[in-house]
Amino acid sequence: METKRIGKQTVRLREPVVIRAAASTVGPKEAEGPLRKYFDETVEDIFYGETTWEKAESHFVEKNMRLAVQKADLLMEDMDYILCGDLLNQCSGSIFGTRQFKRPFFGLFGACSTMGEAMSLGAMLIDGGFAKYVLAGASSHFCSAEKQFRAPLGLGTQRPPTASWTVTGDGAVVLGKGGYGPVITEITTGKTVDMGITDANNMGAAMAPAAADLILAHFLDTGRSCADYDAIVSGDLGWYGRDLVVELLEKEGCHLDERYTDCGIQIFNQRLQDTHAGGSGCACSAVTFCGYYYKMLMERKIRRMLFLPTGALMSQTSAQQGESIPGIAHGLVIECPPKEEK
Amino acid sequence: METKRIGKQTVRLREPVVIRAAASTVGPKEAEGPLRKYFDETVEDIFYGETTWEKAESHFVEKNMRLAVQKADLLMEDMDYILCGDLLNQCSGSIFGTRQFKRPFFGLFGACSTMGEAMSLGAMLIDGGFAKYVLAGASSHFCSAEKQFRAPLGLGTQRPPTASWTVTGDGAVVLGKGGYGPVITEITTGKTVDMGITDANNMGAAMAPAAADLILAHFLDTGRSCADYDAIVSGDLGWYGRDLVVELLEKEGCHLDERYTDCGIQIFNQRLQDTHAGGSGCACSAVTFCGYYYKMLMERKIRRMLFLPTGALMSQTSAQQGESIPGIAHGLVIECPPKEEK
Repeated sequence: METKRIGKQTVRLREPVVIRAAASTVGPKEAEGPLRKYFDETVEDIFYGETTWEKAESHFVEKNMRLAVQKADLLMEDMDYILCGDLLNQCSGSIFGTRQFKRPFFGLFGACSTMGEAMSLGAMLIDGGFAKYVLAGASSHFCSAEKQFRAPLGLGTQRPPTASWTVTGDGAVVLGKGGYGPVITEITTGKTVDMGITDANNMGAAMAPAAADLILAHFLDTGRSCADYDAIVSGDLGWYGRDLVVELLEKEGCHLDERYTDCGIQIFNQRLQDTHAGGSGCACSAVTFCGYYYKMLMERKIRRMLFLPTGALMSQTSAQQGESIPGIAHGLVIECPPKEEK
Repeated sequence: METKRIGKQTVRLREPVVIRAAASTVGPKEAEGPLRKYFDETVEDIFYGETTWEKAESHFVEKNMRLAVQKADLLMEDMDYILCGDLLNQCSGSIFGTRQFKRPFFGLFGACSTMGEAMSLGAMLIDGGFAKYVLAGASSHFCSAEKQFRAPLGLGTQRPPTASWTVTGDGAVVLGKGGYGPVITEITTGKTVDMGITDANNMGAAMAPAAADLILAHFLDTGRSCADYDAIVSGDLGWYGRDLVVELLEKEGCHLDERYTDCGIQIFNQRLQDTHAGGSGCACSAVTFCGYYYKMLMERKIRRMLFLPTGALMSQTSAQQGESIPGIAHGLVIECPPKEEK
């Protein structure tokens, strides 16, 4: 078989993989934000009827992944593989959220880049002939993430301006061969990039070098530039991180204009919602893509986008042991549906 | 493209993927066990020159993955993807162990089944035309695992007979197209199976139903039975878990004879090494395969094996919140090298 690699980090699918459906379920704060009308489900109760934040996160996963399959007019039994992950220790949001599904399961850890990793591997499994349908997703929960990575919420710790707000929710897509929907055409897989940032309250700075590295690699591999995309969208860098990416790439002679934005910027109203640097967490890019961008692609308002969920690959233990925070980004080229229905 | 699926959970690769090299690096206890002569490197210092157990685990990852690439007569730059994971929170053993490699990276979480997950996805990426070479591996460390999942070692907690001993080390393979070596021909991907076991000191019982489910699915998908394999080898069920698998399958009318064993049984001498139920951890199946089985396949003493690393998908938080322990297994059919060198 001829290779599908078109550069050091990029592959081009033999046949575009169709995003047959996308589903997004979010918590109360996201439901008050500027993207409220794009989400499928908004949940008022941050516990989602459960007794712990972790169980609530799993509940988001289970309900939303079922919704994605339903929106694709398919059954869970039709899914050849499930790929997902989250921020919690041992990916427990995903494990306990999907354990009822009884389908072949690949657990992923890409921190907040997980949606990009799940869609990348899912699309390759389909294009490689191994699957007809893949269910891919990612989740996070503000309360379980704060508890695990920063400080118990009850402590009322002051948040610095560079701190971001973990998005509560789950985003999931059903990928398939054929059918109608936006298509994944190319995948640029990120390297771990560590520039020595150690401030767990400035994740945007930790992830920006990885995002810049991914965008540059993608442009080099494809010969394209910012002008070839209607949107270039990173995962959860927020306001500070986005500006850093622009600055880092400017130094490399690569200019990004206003077509480059970040899901962390779009999901909250910075002024009205007191979310400081913006949104973050695996769900940030997952629900923003599944809610907002999926619809923009379907309506052909965006014809080609580079979607690059970003992740800060730290743990509480590594931070306590003085390690810096490595970042990663997983990029996908996603295009609007072809004009004619197949 | 025609589908490669031959059953509900199994795919057959279009062309066998060659395991170009396998490397194993283990700690002092493993070096005293019955497989000592099969490991590439044995490290006397449990800290491996580092100041913490977590950093030691990353050191095992870095050194051993470099060794695998070196044994394959390749350079790290030749690796199109790296796939690996471990038991630590946010997979920090793998993240910090591979961050210097600067190659496209997919982090995985499959608990102790990770070696199976990494080899499965790696083989599919190659057979799908996305990669020429993939570096896949998994690691664990007795001290970091005990600290995270059970009790601080300094406490000297008594271990019940069903407790297993987390293997310290890293196992890694270089997968590629062409060349000489054992080959991966089929992949059976596991479902999450939760039978309600809640005892974190009896992981074998938690994982046995998932291993039994995988073996049964594999036999159904391929029409084979135990007699078609020279060895069927699960990951880290240990003595109690192995017997449970045999018992569970007997009830389904499926007989496993002595060709079925478990890496957790083989890696330690139960009587002399006081390891109770046997070995466990991501490294258990990874180093036993990369050390012992790889050589048995190369020497054609084993012609066809079903290798199924097993994982208990629990976290400390889920255990504290009363959740049961879901299990998973990832199966691969691995055959000895074809008689003629290519």
